[in-house]
Amino acid sequence: MTAVSPVLDPEATIGILGGGQLGRMLVLAAARLGFKCHVFAPNPDSPAFDVVHRVTCADYTDTEALDRFASDVDVVTYEFENVPAETAAFLAARVPVLPDPAILATTQDRLVEKNFVAGLGIPTAAFADIPSPGKLKAAIEHIGRPAVLKTRRFGYDGKGQVAIKNGTDPDAAWREAGGQPCILEAFVPFEREVSVVAARGHAGGVECFDVTENEHRDHILKTSRVPAALSERDAAQARRIAEIIAQKFGYVGVLAVEMFLLREGELLVNEIAPRVHNSGHWTLDGASVSQFEQHIRAVAGWPLAKPLRHGRVEMINLIGREVEDYRRYLNVPGTAVHLYGKTAVRPGRKMGHVTRVIGE
Amino acid sequence: MTAVSPVLDPEATIGILGGGQLGRMLVLAAARLGFKCHVFAPNPDSPAFDVVHRVTCADYTDTEALDRFASDVDVVTYEFENVPAETAAFLAARVPVLPDPAILATTQDRLVEKNFVAGLGIPTAAFADIPSPGKLKAAIEHIGRPAVLKTRRFGYDGKGQVAIKNGTDPDAAWREAGGQPCILEAFVPFEREVSVVAARGHAGGVECFDVTENEHRDHILKTSRVPAALSERDAAQARRIAEIIAQKFGYVGVLAVEMFLLREGELLVNEIAPRVHNSGHWTLDGASVSQFEQHIRAVAGWPLAKPLRHGRVEMINLIGREVEDYRRYLNVPGTAVHLYGKTAVRPGRKMGHVTRVIGE
Repeated sequence: MTAVSPVLDPEATIGILGGGQLGRMLVLAAARLGFKCHVFAPNPDSPAFDVVHRVTCADYTDTEALDRFASDVDVVTYEFENVPAETAAFLAARVPVLPDPAILATTQDRLVEKNFVAGLGIPTAAFADIPSPGKLKAAIEHIGRPAVLKTRRFGYDGKGQVAIKNGTDPDAAWREAGGQPCILEAFVPFEREVSVVAARGHAGGVECFDVTENEHRDHILKTSRVPAALSERDAAQARRIAEIIAQKFGYVGVLAVEMFLLREGELLVNEIAPRVHNSGHWTLDGASVSQFEQHIRAVAGWPLAKPLRHGRVEMINLIGREVEDYRRYLNVPGTAVHLYGKTAVRPGRKMGHVTRVIGE
Repeated sequence: MTAVSPVLDPEATIGILGGGQLGRMLVLAAARLGFKCHVFAPNPDSPAFDVVHRVTCADYTDTEALDRFASDVDVVTYEFENVPAETAAFLAARVPVLPDPAILATTQDRLVEKNFVAGLGIPTAAFADIPSPGKLKAAIEHIGRPAVLKTRRFGYDGKGQVAIKNGTDPDAAWREAGGQPCILEAFVPFEREVSVVAARGHAGGVECFDVTENEHRDHILKTSRVPAALSERDAAQARRIAEIIAQKFGYVGVLAVEMFLLREGELLVNEIAPRVHNSGHWTLDGASVSQFEQHIRAVAGWPLAKPLRHGRVEMINLIGREVEDYRRYLNVPGTAVHLYGKTAVRPGRKMGHVTRVIGE
């Protein structure tokens, strides 16, 4: 079965792969619209399990569990990009899976993704395929230092990345990256990091949220601000890039495109996330429709909403022990506190976020 | 155990009696804050069951089920005012129940409620106790026609109400009201119906949402608009009335006070709802905090939020077959669609609502 896009009735059940905070917030958005959800996730402590009646706690390779899951839902979507290809294929043979799992093959591999973006005529940092350590030295010569060596697969929040500075030994860097196929990317002296969260509906229309400016700390998103401080021309260009990517994929749902803004105003695409994205959490309180509802509308075959922003908005992640700050934020007028129901506090773990609408 | 107000950790579990749309929206608000919920309701089709992992489907008189429920939760609250007194007492002996169930004794009985309000020096329509049909004729003489005969208990959405017009036979009216203890109320030629949704926190502070203007159709709320078209003086007086009532009750949580505004500016209290209220649904999209979150904050012992309104807001109930209009509303920019996940469409049944923020 190809990823057809059915138009769901409000009584329909949406299957969600992945039980983290993104899955949880997708469930909450679906519930507002009357949908039922069924969450499939391997971890019994999945935050999404708390907010849904039907859950399957099983491994992504458990075909019996996947089969039962598929027969219980009307459409399947996912909260994360590392859905195993076999899982997606197994499900797609039984029930519509949106966005089309074929897209995962592109976004799960940094090299394929970069080639895809470059093939659309959209600028990226200079990059080189590093299939083996032998190729790394020449690539560093070509691209120059500083650069970043990244594993092609399974990287997020800075995992699987090694900085190539002056004096970094290529062989040591290769080993540090796990001795697996990599991509070498030129280090980009960016002015700002921005992202566009965009939704494409089943009829092919695209709605972009306003360009968001992001600050990372230890490779983890710490703060998003919207609107980003860039010219209207650059903002329009950023939205256009996201729209081109969504259209080229024939995407149905929400995706995020992370970009670097250079001093000269050039925008380089850094990464595509084929899912709702942390830099879109501000939409929960700062816009007339959230990224989560927009995604649910798209995969349900419902019309996208036109997003209207309530003002300037700031989103701050509560990471690790910072979650304790929720008490303070509860007392700040106009600030919305979101906690993800995670009991174990670990360094670098996203425990919640707060959103503040600052007025016009 | 008296209704002490513990300060909950975000990992705590909130027990909710009642599984309708109000319970459902309370669960969704609690989930945003990281809380787990356990919903207790007798109807297996309860809309709240879809959005929560732990449910008990049992009768309110099932003490075994209530006992298990009480031992699984850190605090109990309710979505409706007709919680049986025995149920509330049984639970309150085992776990904090908020708001204090003693308040239900007042609000479950129109006569006791009216006497309570009048005892606070707050105006109401003229009313008389009608314990038996023999008292009705004299009371009609005294109060005048038109008037309304209402059962003292279990009335909502116009149920249990009989209009006493010119020519209405008192005995027939008594029979139509079910031949049970009633209250006779003078008909009030009101200019507007308004309500105040107010929260009182465990520390005793009260936060009122802006006064809402309500239009009913066939005794069921159809439209709410905020701010209500009344003078700042009248609005302040309406909020003051709600605050006096909340304070007198020592209330913890959200309550709603429905009032009639007379042509001369006088405000008469019509009804108190000791729970979140349909006329506060606009707060989900039209304010920086919703009535549901405010209630959860209060029963969790967390500080109340200062509600900031996003603009003029309109809320329209989707009743019975009107639910089909959701398709049209999905395309109206700035309009949020809420569906309650009810499968059976019945005349007069509240199926969902839409909220529109209209700007300043």
